Amino acid sequence: MLSNLETIYTYAEKWVREAGELIKQSFSKELLIQTKSNPNDLVTNMDKEVEQYFIKHIRETFPEHHILGEEGYGEKLESTDGTIWIIDPIDGTMNFVHQQRNFAISVGIYVDGVGEIGFIYDVIHDELYHARRGQGAYMNDIELPKLDPVSVKEAILALNATWVTKNFRIDPSVLSPLVTAVRGTRSYGTAAIELAYVAAGRLDAYITPRLAPWDFAAGLILINEVGGVATNFEGTEIDLLKQNSIFVGKPGLHEEILENYFRKASR
Amino acid sequence: MLSNLETIYTYAEKWVREAGELIKQSFSKELLIQTKSNPNDLVTNMDKEVEQYFIKHIRETFPEHHILGEEGYGEKLESTDGTIWIIDPIDGTMNFVHQQRNFAISVGIYVDGVGEIGFIYDVIHDELYHARRGQGAYMNDIELPKLDPVSVKEAILALNATWVTKNFRIDPSVLSPLVTAVRGTRSYGTAAIELAYVAAGRLDAYITPRLAPWDFAAGLILINEVGGVATNFEGTEIDLLKQNSIFVGKPGLHEEILENYFRKASR
Repeated sequence: MLSNLETIYTYAEKWVREAGELIKQSFSKELLIQTKSNPNDLVTNMDKEVEQYFIKHIRETFPEHHILGEEGYGEKLESTDGTIWIIDPIDGTMNFVHQQRNFAISVGIYVDGVGEIGFIYDVIHDELYHARRGQGAYMNDIELPKLDPVSVKEAILALNATWVTKNFRIDPSVLSPLVTAVRGTRSYGTAAIELAYVAAGRLDAYITPRLAPWDFAAGLILINEVGGVATNFEGTEIDLLKQNSIFVGKPGLHEEILENYFRKASR
Repeated sequence: MLSNLETIYTYAEKWVREAGELIKQSFSKELLIQTKSNPNDLVTNMDKEVEQYFIKHIRETFPEHHILGEEGYGEKLESTDGTIWIIDPIDGTMNFVHQQRNFAISVGIYVDGVGEIGFIYDVIHDELYHARRGQGAYMNDIELPKLDPVSVKEAILALNATWVTKNFRIDPSVLSPLVTAVRGTRSYGTAAIELAYVAAGRLDAYITPRLAPWDFAAGLILINEVGGVATNFEGTEIDLLKQNSIFVGKPGLHEEILENYFRKASR
């Protein structure tokens, strides 16, 4: 089993890097102009092309594996049995179109529901975050240190301004006091990079009311490896096959926010 | 006069790049650990060292020039007469400490109150944004295109969540409806990079209730060169020697937000 995971890891890294090259090649000057006049088409094309690239290679090399992908070329899965590749070909599509940066390829590989291998590739900045369960998490060849506890007042929190204004997912009054209490907030518009930043200790927590499996599958594996805490807004386990609210953070900080903000608001 | 500005530009670029090297050299592994245990000291040291580096070189080469810097080693200026270098040695200090990225060196050079030369250097990503009045704006060697108008509903807005929650600078109800109306919001925690992103068309507008001259001096020159609009929250001219509210955006979008959000809220 161990050597099998090593093989999967080696292929996954190769395909993630090659997919990054595909995306970079799409940024010719002409294409840059096209993105501005017709943003939604381009993102759809590249999303589809990259997902199909992964699916083709996975099916050829590991025909017994399952695939769950944002663009829907994979399968509809009812169970977490077996080996599942959970893929977001381009996480941060709005950034991809508007900025041609600040997006990532996200690939999480789960075996019988357990996260074994995670890759998040910030293509433009050439930063590959990767982890294998029990073997630590890395950015390129630098091992990411274990996360130390931090208090709310010293924390940098990733949270979009949308969630403290009128919206359909969460009462703005739940998180507004937290925004006031932390040292600062950031929002990058890409869940995969925000999760990788938490794993790398650059953000202390990340809170967002709805993510799909391909948005968080790889990030949770990275965060797990460095001792971060990941739950939904209720503080319970994230369901790998469904949309979830997502709340990840450093140890200590996660408990403090859960108790003093989420649970206080629901009482 | 023209050749004089060329000379100033050449020196400024050299010093900005050298200052970037100084900062990068500070990121040895040992220093990285130091930033975590003692964040405020390190940022103070590097801020001071970089500002003093600029001041030393400017005073040697251009003894008649004035200098306004965040760390206070420059002058207290009452007038915009003459040539003024307005310098933020590290814009985005919190990111510098917590992330060792997403900060910038910002240098704006004004002659008799007119912005002539602007540099914003995203050190870690090696992206140098630069402009000379009337000669266009560039990122590295790529000329930034003129900004096209965009509507509120298609816009990506840089706005920190702080400004739509309880705070001491602006009533949260002024900008909350705007957050709901735009396509998306982002917050990077560095005014200089947020201004450079507006100039590069990656953000459509940026709104923040208080910036000092060194935060915006270079950015306004870049935005001017690509046809962006820059005012305070009242829609009037920014005072170069004082703290201001800052609202920059694409043409059309700026007017729409000013009329339908800022002015509507004040009526």
